[in-house]
Amino acid sequence: MSVSAPRPEWIAVDWGTSHLRLWRMPRSGVALDRTDSDKGMGRLTRDQFEPVLLDLVQNDLPAEGHLTVICCGMAGSRQGWSEARYLAVPSAPPSIAQATHVQTRSPSLSVHILPGLSQASPADVMRGEETQISGFLSTEPDFDGVLCLPGTHSKWAHVSAGEVVSFRTFMTGELFALLSGQSVLRHSLASSGLDPESFSGAVAHVMSRPEGLAGDLFSLRAESLLSGLDATAARSRLSGLLIGAELAAARSYWLGRDIVIAGESGIASAYQIALAAQGADPRMVDAEEMTLNGLRAAYAQLREHAL
Amino acid sequence: MSVSAPRPEWIAVDWGTSHLRLWRMPRSGVALDRTDSDKGMGRLTRDQFEPVLLDLVQNDLPAEGHLTVICCGMAGSRQGWSEARYLAVPSAPPSIAQATHVQTRSPSLSVHILPGLSQASPADVMRGEETQISGFLSTEPDFDGVLCLPGTHSKWAHVSAGEVVSFRTFMTGELFALLSGQSVLRHSLASSGLDPESFSGAVAHVMSRPEGLAGDLFSLRAESLLSGLDATAARSRLSGLLIGAELAAARSYWLGRDIVIAGESGIASAYQIALAAQGADPRMVDAEEMTLNGLRAAYAQLREHAL
Repeated sequence: MSVSAPRPEWIAVDWGTSHLRLWRMPRSGVALDRTDSDKGMGRLTRDQFEPVLLDLVQNDLPAEGHLTVICCGMAGSRQGWSEARYLAVPSAPPSIAQATHVQTRSPSLSVHILPGLSQASPADVMRGEETQISGFLSTEPDFDGVLCLPGTHSKWAHVSAGEVVSFRTFMTGELFALLSGQSVLRHSLASSGLDPESFSGAVAHVMSRPEGLAGDLFSLRAESLLSGLDATAARSRLSGLLIGAELAAARSYWLGRDIVIAGESGIASAYQIALAAQGADPRMVDAEEMTLNGLRAAYAQLREHAL
Repeated sequence: MSVSAPRPEWIAVDWGTSHLRLWRMPRSGVALDRTDSDKGMGRLTRDQFEPVLLDLVQNDLPAEGHLTVICCGMAGSRQGWSEARYLAVPSAPPSIAQATHVQTRSPSLSVHILPGLSQASPADVMRGEETQISGFLSTEPDFDGVLCLPGTHSKWAHVSAGEVVSFRTFMTGELFALLSGQSVLRHSLASSGLDPESFSGAVAHVMSRPEGLAGDLFSLRAESLLSGLDATAARSRLSGLLIGAELAAARSYWLGRDIVIAGESGIASAYQIALAAQGADPRMVDAEEMTLNGLRAAYAQLREHAL
């Protein structure tokens, strides 16, 4: 970073299990820049969070006072940097007033970690997605419908009157990674690619008979052995079986509701295709922009609070 | 092995993906001894099968002629020692006449690998279990019902009039291993133990709503975080969810039929508890004895054939 680069007024951080994403922010408007790092919560001991952060913002520290940092995500988990609470739904997304203020060794840092959300029954938790929901509501405060946040642990959140009413988590992304990378199915699957027809067929199949999933999985291996099932088709069918099973389980969330999908392009498109085949008409929004908007909203609250 | 040990007349081998089990057999009656090895098919290249076998039977080779070896299992797969065919169901379990005779370098070995079974729709395959079924039918030739063979890839086989009519494979054991060992759930699960109440509750829950499985899994993690779910209870519930999902998918196999469960004690008991709660009254049989009886039946066919 050159010495003439503009200094950020604050730092926005999405600190997840496997990745850390950091934006240098001006008072308002677009980020000055964005840093991606693989120093996710899962790779760090508690003592390592502050040095990792200091390393990333060393040129941004003010000579006097402190640099405000607002974090969301797994940095606030029990195994993370400093435990942030869960707010029980129904609840508006957490505000900065409910954040954990981290005890840092450096006096130049003022770090806030936003809470997650929890649900008593069925038991469920989120850390990070609540900030995406906050960001979404900052641009569409009157939204009434369901947000679908695909990923390692996909979330479906029913949002109404500015609150998260209820939500559910599905281990779809993690199951796909384990089955495609480490189970016997790995011998039959391409490492990338999506064949829309195979994908959609598998979604329709499992949604019409979701209780058959446990048997449908091994059929991919058997078809590969018996009739040389194409490896891209097999990968697409695995994706379709798992996403279809999720849609079947989440039906009460999306049926008859406005649906917004937030995610990376590839996986979000797969959900869009699957939902469209069910007669739903989901909108797509940019997941990263939602996160950043949620962190922006928290910073705006902090300034209001302080002023 | 001491020089005075009785020499086997033939060798029975169950050569699976992860393990090899070998019995030194007299002409009739009980095995002289039994060897377990971790030199399963998955760890061997094609050239390594014969040396591994020779090493295990080096004291048993006759000065003239050859030692008969009858194998079942993954040694007959495409990635195995020598590919054995699949017989399409409906079919009686394979006989020795349908086995692959392996081209060995050593003239002292005569190795037969028994075929597997395949099913066109839904696509499915088995290698090894067909020999267990053959062994079971050798003692109960008039059995009409379903055999449940729990394991890494659990099988349900509908058997009638001496034939396997149809069968289905479920990846239950492999899913349990991946989820308990490598997913986010690993933080919440004990490494052993089964709490019958938690297990049965999860079976009943998922069977009443099998489409909810994808969401029920993450609830284990959430309950662990939110209310300190006991780690043995969590492990038992994961087992119950996966076995319950399998029972829901396999309902057309076991409902109203005689059920025989063949397996190792722990996992077979879990299936028995789960099925009993559904009003079924399964019998338990010894899986290893079934395998050995199947290999014995093949050897008897070979002698009949040769005589």
